[in-house]
Amino acid sequence: MYSFTTKVRVRYNETDRMGYLHHGVYPAYFEIGRTEMLRSLGMSYREMEDDGIVLPVSNLNIQYISPAYYDDVLIINTIIKQKPTVRLVFEYEVTNDSGKLVCQGETTLVFVNAITRKPTRAPQSFMERMEQYFKN
Amino acid sequence: MYSFTTKVRVRYNETDRMGYLHHGVYPAYFEIGRTEMLRSLGMSYREMEDDGIVLPVSNLNIQYISPAYYDDVLIINTIIKQKPTVRLVFEYEVTNDSGKLVCQGETTLVFVNAITRKPTRAPQSFMERMEQYFKN
Amino acid sequence: MYSFTTKVRVRYNETDRMGYLHHGVYPAYFEIGRTEMLRSLGMSYREMEDDGIVLPVSNLNIQYISPAYYDDVLIINTIIKQKPTVRLVFEYEVTNDSGKLVCQGETTLVFVNAITRKPTRAPQSFMERMEQYFKN
Amino acid sequence: MYSFTTKVRVRYNETDRMGYLHHGVYPAYFEIGRTEMLRSLGMSYREMEDDGIVLPVSNLNIQYISPAYYDDVLIINTIIKQKPTVRLVFEYEVTNDSGKLVCQGETTLVFVNAITRKPTRAPQSFMERMEQYFKN
Repeated sequence: MYSFTTKVRVRYNETDRMGYLHHGVYPAYFEIGRTEMLRSLGMSYREMEDDGIVLPVSNLNIQYISPAYYDDVLIINTIIKQKPTVRLVFEYEVTNDSGKLVCQGETTLVFVNAITRKPTRAPQSFMERMEQYFKN
Repeated sequence: MYSFTTKVRVRYNETDRMGYLHHGVYPAYFEIGRTEMLRSLGMSYREMEDDGIVLPVSNLNIQYISPAYYDDVLIINTIIKQKPTVRLVFEYEVTNDSGKLVCQGETTLVFVNAITRKPTRAPQSFMERMEQYFKN
Repeated sequence: MYSFTTKVRVRYNETDRMGYLHHGVYPAYFEIGRTEMLRSLGMSYREMEDDGIVLPVSNLNIQYISPAYYDDVLIINTIIKQKPTVRLVFEYEVTNDSGKLVCQGETTLVFVNAITRKPTRAPQSFMERMEQYFKN
Repeated sequence: MYSFTTKVRVRYNETDRMGYLHHGVYPAYFEIGRTEMLRSLGMSYREMEDDGIVLPVSNLNIQYISPAYYDDVLIINTIIKQKPTVRLVFEYEVTNDSGKLVCQGETTLVFVNAITRKPTRAPQSFMERMEQYFKN
């Protein structure tokens, strides 16, 4: 298991007329969570793309627990529980700065060759860095 | 059961550097699907809000099947399968104009009093219009 | 001079907690205006990109006159007043369906070679179609 | 004169199929710039709204100089050059972390009473904090 925490401040344009952070913004926040998690492992998602591998999302699930508001600082905890294969599953817990749970989510991503657009194996360097977190 | 179909054309700013419609845009497309479905039933989501009821999303699920691209015309089929209660479940099927399935999704919404922010019953007029689609 | 009119309905996620269509959404609406204008001339912006020409924006100007709201149908009038060169200037007038002026804007775009990323001449086919609207 | 600097990292969903940070995202970045500038002065834009004053944008101008890319860290320098009245003019300079100028912009905002939606004077506390930066 590997987990990593990032903070995001809710922007004005991300709110809606209900006064809430719009529910459709969370997928972008999850994307920030996993980008920063990869960076914490010494990996850059941008470089992975430049090396010819893209990671489209194949599944997304969100449970909205309590609303977030303009200017809130949200804490995004991103977790990998299962050793990655051709698929990579991230879980997310978003809390506000009072510690209240805002939402929980999960995304499944697939390693894809940027040219052929076919599923491919995870880069060797990625698997090596992951290895230590999934020893028995 | 009640279903309704709307079309949306993919905007330039909704694409990403992978060349795909960004996966985080679909929740907004689903929102268009259900707004237009309600309109087809003679109901306006805006008026419902003006009458003091908001409908936050409590759950979202998306399976991404094949990518969509800039300028594609997508067909959003929005379906209510279960008779609404305090919760309202919408399912979505998005296809492109070649008939290819792009994604499937589901959202659960909750009727909430705009002032108290507590769950409330669906408006009477809404339930009456729904009635005919869920007779035994 | 050439002008063309398109309609866009304001989406829920495009509103903000002030209850207005967020001011940062208009550039995307202008982009729809010019895409549909080009289509009305028998041209596809997507095909132009596929042919190796991109059109980044070099200048944007917006005067906000009166707010727009959720579910409003806005009328975007897109106007080319000057014969295009390596630059292409679009003006926009956005009105709501009561005829009230919402905003006015202007964008300057530059024809750029997608590979070299250097400014380039407008495609011949585009100039030919434009010719008739800018005769003396 | 008063100026303040904030950093923003370009998100994946903010890029477009040209590979650039989409030009329509900058207004949201400018909004972050001025929010953080106000915070640096000990003021919260959220609290100002809670106190009944909103600040809609009445004019926006952007010159795009060079593109920004996914994962770039952009430095937003926000500047107030003129002593605020009922209007508040912010200028912006966005550079990337190599020091290259990405864009320049300007927004004019108007202090508006949230209830009446009429222009109003800037809050007294705001004017007092501004005073010291605009002495002769």
